[in-house]
Amino acid sequence: MPTTRLLIEYDGTDFRGWQIQPEGPTVQGAIEDALAVALRHPVAVVGSGRTDTGVHARGQVAHFVTEAAVDAFRLKASLNGLLPPSIAVLAVAPAPDGFHARYDARRRRYVYHAATEPRALDRRTRVHLWPAPDVDAMNEAARRLVGRHDFSSFCRTKSETTNRVCTVRLARWGPGARPGDFDFEVEADRFLHGMVRGIVGTLVEVGRGRRSPSDVADVLAARDRRAAGPAAPPHGLVLDRVEYDAPPA
Amino acid sequence: MPTTRLLIEYDGTDFRGWQIQPEGPTVQGAIEDALAVALRHPVAVVGSGRTDTGVHARGQVAHFVTEAAVDAFRLKASLNGLLPPSIAVLAVAPAPDGFHARYDARRRRYVYHAATEPRALDRRTRVHLWPAPDVDAMNEAARRLVGRHDFSSFCRTKSETTNRVCTVRLARWGPGARPGDFDFEVEADRFLHGMVRGIVGTLVEVGRGRRSPSDVADVLAARDRRAAGPAAPPHGLVLDRVEYDAPPA
Repeated sequence: MPTTRLLIEYDGTDFRGWQIQPEGPTVQGAIEDALAVALRHPVAVVGSGRTDTGVHARGQVAHFVTEAAVDAFRLKASLNGLLPPSIAVLAVAPAPDGFHARYDARRRRYVYHAATEPRALDRRTRVHLWPAPDVDAMNEAARRLVGRHDFSSFCRTKSETTNRVCTVRLARWGPGARPGDFDFEVEADRFLHGMVRGIVGTLVEVGRGRRSPSDVADVLAARDRRAAGPAAPPHGLVLDRVEYDAPPA
Repeated sequence: MPTTRLLIEYDGTDFRGWQIQPEGPTVQGAIEDALAVALRHPVAVVGSGRTDTGVHARGQVAHFVTEAAVDAFRLKASLNGLLPPSIAVLAVAPAPDGFHARYDARRRRYVYHAATEPRALDRRTRVHLWPAPDVDAMNEAARRLVGRHDFSSFCRTKSETTNRVCTVRLARWGPGARPGDFDFEVEADRFLHGMVRGIVGTLVEVGRGRRSPSDVADVLAARDRRAAGPAAPPHGLVLDRVEYDAPPA
């Protein structure tokens, strides 16, 4: 069946996350609504993964299947006209038959944005962290997360996923765009529910001197959510990129 | 009299510009209200210049004078607690006696943000320009604005300023942070009311092929607002930095 791939940016502030649910507006729901109008028939949209309430995306990937002819250029313009301004479709492209945005994703990249100064223009995507944490200690701790590990200690307890092994390729704090900004980049083959926010919350405790960097190895070994720190606030988190074997749309 | 300097960032979306006026909330008004609470007496705040409704700032400078003792560190924390989240005080510092945020400013820098792709996360500060304009032509035109000129053609007709000569040091389009983003940087000793938006609107007409780059010399020579293009939308414009002989706060 002809498959179409979407590259999507969204400001998660006003959504109950990606995945359709009864309690409020979702990004997936808004996109399905816009596609139903643009294509004149309903389609199901499958994303590379869900994002929680308040979490943003600069590079969410989704697909849908339809027998209708899709003019990618016109569909992109229609969707951007129909969607609320907090969702932008950056690309629409035909995908190989059988392409699946979730199963075929090889690597996901998230960025968590923080700043030691209050921010007015970036306040929806950057968390104020004051006083400045010890970034070297956070990076020493973050290095211990790289590799293939069971991340149960960073997974929401209500998650039903049984395989909790992920391969983290990169986990690093670095300077952001402006003085006082700093960003945490993390890349893995997959992420568990709540994993990035649990990692950030734990690393910030290291940066505050409440844990030592070597604690992180014990947290991983515990395989118990209570061993890790609290979840960092959702609004600093952005799904930055999803990679596939074929070049992304 | 003891003078204190403020460095201020704001999201202009919800304000009727910088300067206090009867029709709605202003940034200057919000800062005076917060200072009156923090200092327990009213003070007048003087900015480096006004910004229009919907225009933002990353580096507005202002000063106030008070006989009360000012603890810069505590005042900054108090102001950020009292102000709405769309205004952030980035620095509070003592200034030399007689320092004046407007009269002593030597150079102002604005950045206008545009993108050829729709944006969700940056939609409050970046204007969607499609199709992509000819950036080389816009830069050829922009170079003709550099130098000391009478900018009457780019000044709002209702402005009462009689001296309309400004010295532009830099006027250049360049790539922004993400593919498809492009930013116009402009620096001058002073700017007239509506000048940056008039320049951007005119340069975009050049980028669309509706004017030639050499037209800009004729527009300057006309000293008539009707000779220039329309004002670009306010939400792409950010007052980026104000420079003084002394290092900024």
